[in-house]
Amino acid sequence: MAVLRRSKLLKLSAIYEPIQKELSEIENEFRSISESERANFPNLYKMLSHILVGGKVIRPTLTLLAGRFYNYNRAKLLPMATANELLHIATLVHDDAIDKSDVRRWRETVNKLWGEEKAILLGDYLFAKAGEFAAATENLRVVKLFAQTLETISQGELKQSFDSFKLEHSRENYTERIAKKTAALFSMSTETGAILSDAPEKSIQILKDYGYNLGIAFQIVDDILDFTSSEEELGKPIGSDLAQGTLTLPAMLLLERYPENNPVKKLFQNGEKQENVKRAIELLRDSPIIQECYALASDYCTKACRNLGQLPDESKREALAELARYIIERKK
Amino acid sequence: MAVLRRSKLLKLSAIYEPIQKELSEIENEFRSISESERANFPNLYKMLSHILVGGKVIRPTLTLLAGRFYNYNRAKLLPMATANELLHIATLVHDDAIDKSDVRRWRETVNKLWGEEKAILLGDYLFAKAGEFAAATENLRVVKLFAQTLETISQGELKQSFDSFKLEHSRENYTERIAKKTAALFSMSTETGAILSDAPEKSIQILKDYGYNLGIAFQIVDDILDFTSSEEELGKPIGSDLAQGTLTLPAMLLLERYPENNPVKKLFQNGEKQENVKRAIELLRDSPIIQECYALASDYCTKACRNLGQLPDESKREALAELARYIIERKK
Repeated sequence: MAVLRRSKLLKLSAIYEPIQKELSEIENEFRSISESERANFPNLYKMLSHILVGGKVIRPTLTLLAGRFYNYNRAKLLPMATANELLHIATLVHDDAIDKSDVRRWRETVNKLWGEEKAILLGDYLFAKAGEFAAATENLRVVKLFAQTLETISQGELKQSFDSFKLEHSRENYTERIAKKTAALFSMSTETGAILSDAPEKSIQILKDYGYNLGIAFQIVDDILDFTSSEEELGKPIGSDLAQGTLTLPAMLLLERYPENNPVKKLFQNGEKQENVKRAIELLRDSPIIQECYALASDYCTKACRNLGQLPDESKREALAELARYIIERKK
Repeated sequence: MAVLRRSKLLKLSAIYEPIQKELSEIENEFRSISESERANFPNLYKMLSHILVGGKVIRPTLTLLAGRFYNYNRAKLLPMATANELLHIATLVHDDAIDKSDVRRWRETVNKLWGEEKAILLGDYLFAKAGEFAAATENLRVVKLFAQTLETISQGELKQSFDSFKLEHSRENYTERIAKKTAALFSMSTETGAILSDAPEKSIQILKDYGYNLGIAFQIVDDILDFTSSEEELGKPIGSDLAQGTLTLPAMLLLERYPENNPVKKLFQNGEKQENVKRAIELLRDSPIIQECYALASDYCTKACRNLGQLPDESKREALAELARYIIERKK
C-alpha cells in the first residue's frame, strides 16, 4: 500500500481531506481579520487582504492532524492552527522586507507594493494577531511555547543574517540554523496540536519530534528547490538564497566538492551575482549533490515517522506519513 | 504639600524610590537576557547589551506603582513590568529602523550600528522575549491584553506611516494615533499592575484610565520637546518628527495659525527639509502654541488623576500624582 502510494505524485488536497472543513474555517477567519479593518483603516485592510491568502497551510495542517489522536478539541485547535499560520506569514513578511524580495507566491511582496516600513509594521501587527489567537486557546502551556518559538525563529533568522556571505560553515551550523528558522515552528505546530487534544506526555513528545524532523526535511527540500525548480513553479525567483548570501546545504556541498573555480566562492568574495548564481545552478543540477540532499531530507522524514506507530488509529497516523512523503516529493 | 512639591523640579529618582529595588531587579533581568546569549551567539549578546540599558523605565514603573494598592504580588508584577519595558524597547528598535534614525538616548541606534535587517530581527526577538515574560505571569487575562496592545501599537504606527507627509489632519486624528501608538501601552502597564495585584474591577478601571490619559499627556509633551528641547538634552536630534513627515500637535497648530508662507506646508509639499524644519522650530518657540499644547497635556494629566482618590492609601496615590506632574515638567 505504502509503495503504491509512493508511486503516484501525492496531492496536498488528498492529505488535507480529513481537515478540509477546519482549513476553510481558518480561511474565513483570515477574511474576518481583513474585514475587521475595512471600514476604519482601508489601507491596512488592503495589505491584509493581499497577504492573508494562498500558501500551502502546512503549519495549521500539522496542528490539526496532530490534534486528531485524542480529544479533537476544535474550539482550541482552530485558534492555535490559525495562530501558527499567522506567525508563519508574519515571518515571511519580515523576511521579504529584509531580503528586499519582490515576489513571493507568484505575487508581489508587501515591501514591493507598500515599501519596507509598512512591511515591518504589518509583520508586527501579524505577530500580535498570532499571539491573540494563541491566547484564545486559554492554555498557558501553548502560549509560553508560542512565545519561545518566536524567540527561536528570530534567533535563527539573526544567525542567518550574521552568517551571510561567509564561506566558513559546518553542516552542524546549517542544521542548527534551519532547526531554529523552520523546524521550531513545525515542531510547535504538532506539539500544540497534541497538547490541546489532551494527548499523554509520551504522545506529545512523539508528535513534537515528528514536527521537528519534518521541519528539517522541509527546509532541506526548500533549499534544494531554490536551485532545481523554476520561477513559474516556485512562485519566486530561483537561486535567491545564494544571491542573498545564504549558504544552504546544496551550495555548501558544491563548495566542498568543487574547490577550484567555484561560483559560490566567487560570488561571496567578488559578487558578480547574476553570473555566479547561474553557474552554481547549472553545476548543481548536473552533480550528484541534489540526490545526496534529497537522501538526507528523506532520512529526516523517516526519523519523523519512526515512532508514529505508537499512536492510536492507523488511518490518522497514515495522514502524517503521507504528509512526510509529500514534503519530499513536492515541486513547490 | 502638593503646591510645595510642584514648585521644585520633580526628579524621577524620588518618584521611583518606593519601587527602586524592583527596578534594580528588572535591570538584572535585562543583564541576564543579554548574558544568556553571550556564549552561543556573541553577536546577539552585543546587540542586547547595547539596547537593554538606560531609558526612563516609565512603563515598568507604572505597572509596579499601580500594583501597590492591593495584593503587591512581586512574583507576577516583576515579569509583567519587565515585559512592558521589553515591548517598548522592541517598538523603539523597529521605529528607528523605519525612520532610519541614527541616534537615540545619546547613543547610536541598532540600525545605525548593525544595519536595518538586524534591527528588524532584533525587534522580533524582543517582542518574543516580552511575550515570554508576559506569559510568565501565568495570567491569561494579561496575556490577552498584552497581545491586543501590540496589535493596537502596530495599528497606530501603521496609521502614522500612511499619514506621513499629508497635510490634512484633524485633532481627532492626532489623538487617535497617539492613543494607539503610546497611550495603549501606558494603559496596559497600569491595567496589568492592577489585575496582577487582584484589584477590584472598579479600581482596575481607574488605574487603566490613569495610564491611558497619562500616555496621551506623555506623547503630547514628547511632541512638544521634539521642537523645544535640544539634542543634548533629548539624546536625539530635535525636529525629527517633522523631518519624518509626522504632523504632531504643535506642527498641526502652526499649520492652522500661520497659513501664509508656512514651513510645515512647504516641507510637506516641496521638501527642503533642513531649512523648513529649522524655521518651524523658530516659529513655534516664539508662538503661544507651545503653551497651548502644554495646557492640553496638563488637562490629560488632571483627567488621569481625577479618580485616584477612590483608591486606598494616600501615599501610594501621591506617587501616581507625582508621576503625572513629572510627565509635564520633564525636559527629556
